[in-house]
Amino acid sequence: MRMRNLPWAKSYLDEQAIVINDPTMYQGKWKKILNCQELHIEIGSGKGDYWLGMAALYSNIGWIGIEKNPSVAALAIKKYEQTTIADEHMAFIQNDADHIGEWFQQGEVDVIHLNFSDPWHKKRNHKRRLSSPQFITQYQSILSEHGSIQMKTDNQALFEYSILTFQNEAFYLEDIDVNYHCDPSEDVMSEYEQKFVNLNQPIYRAIWRKKTSI
Amino acid sequence: MRMRNLPWAKSYLDEQAIVINDPTMYQGKWKKILNCQELHIEIGSGKGDYWLGMAALYSNIGWIGIEKNPSVAALAIKKYEQTTIADEHMAFIQNDADHIGEWFQQGEVDVIHLNFSDPWHKKRNHKRRLSSPQFITQYQSILSEHGSIQMKTDNQALFEYSILTFQNEAFYLEDIDVNYHCDPSEDVMSEYEQKFVNLNQPIYRAIWRKKTSI
Repeated sequence: MRMRNLPWAKSYLDEQAIVINDPTMYQGKWKKILNCQELHIEIGSGKGDYWLGMAALYSNIGWIGIEKNPSVAALAIKKYEQTTIADEHMAFIQNDADHIGEWFQQGEVDVIHLNFSDPWHKKRNHKRRLSSPQFITQYQSILSEHGSIQMKTDNQALFEYSILTFQNEAFYLEDIDVNYHCDPSEDVMSEYEQKFVNLNQPIYRAIWRKKTSI
Repeated sequence: MRMRNLPWAKSYLDEQAIVINDPTMYQGKWKKILNCQELHIEIGSGKGDYWLGMAALYSNIGWIGIEKNPSVAALAIKKYEQTTIADEHMAFIQNDADHIGEWFQQGEVDVIHLNFSDPWHKKRNHKRRLSSPQFITQYQSILSEHGSIQMKTDNQALFEYSILTFQNEAFYLEDIDVNYHCDPSEDVMSEYEQKFVNLNQPIYRAIWRKKTSI
């Protein structure tokens, strides 16, 4: 998903009302600001296909897209500008999710979406994976009771790693699909996902749910 | 794997020393009888490729093949007769594993192998799956401390079901592979497995290990 650097991206993003510059300011206030009962976030939104598509499909839910690469984020926002989706329930954060635990209050997020995340192949980079223990601890904190994490990926190694790593006291695996076929009436297929489907390569999906605290 | 009934199967099996007629008689004595320190069993051995191949590959381990269909079991034993494998560490049980907990003492088995088991597609038959809760409870009992279960299958639904069902207090998922390639230096590929590999269909594999009792 590497792309060339767009020199205008940073200043463009600064001007967009939907882009939140300092997410820590809204900690604990997201549902009020986005006027929603249920809050979903996507970490690694890329060019925004999923974020936009899901916001259109589930219009009462609050949707926050997160993308660390400014050039990619700028393309997502450009795409958003061309849609007619009402933005009342939407926001976008261009930032590294490393400290996502500081952006949301405990229990503030209902669903975390991880779609086709960077697999970080090299062993020394596994800690950067969005399903590494350092992220899982933060998800556990920001997720509401019964909150869930939904992952889709084409990457076998990342999928297997995630299934093993999420085995802990806080989460249980609610669903696993080793050959997932997206139903467009309830889930959005991004351009990236479509590419793998066209190549007849399997898509892997898992849903983890937070265990009820005793 | 359905095959026609072989009328000679039952009486043939009765005459073979390697075939154990009443496994309950050997409860707690298997390692002594098979002169081994480590005991592996395969439930659903079919025509015996895996049982025979693994016994040849790991000749110090005790290997018990289990197959409920007498005609299929007879073919496995015919195949065994044609090999030159020393039988000192081998046994075969032609019986339904429904009550496998009565054949082995608590902690007597070190590894349970489940290869390409019947997927029992219909919901009402899921309880017959070799990874259904009624079997898992028995595995938990007969497995030694740190004992493991190794499953290979081509069947997506059975694999997904098993990954979800084995999530309990007794086991953890030690390894998962959603596109397993058999290394013949350490694992045996049965005729059945070879068929799926030839069709370029994925083989799924999982290893669960018994948690240490506290």
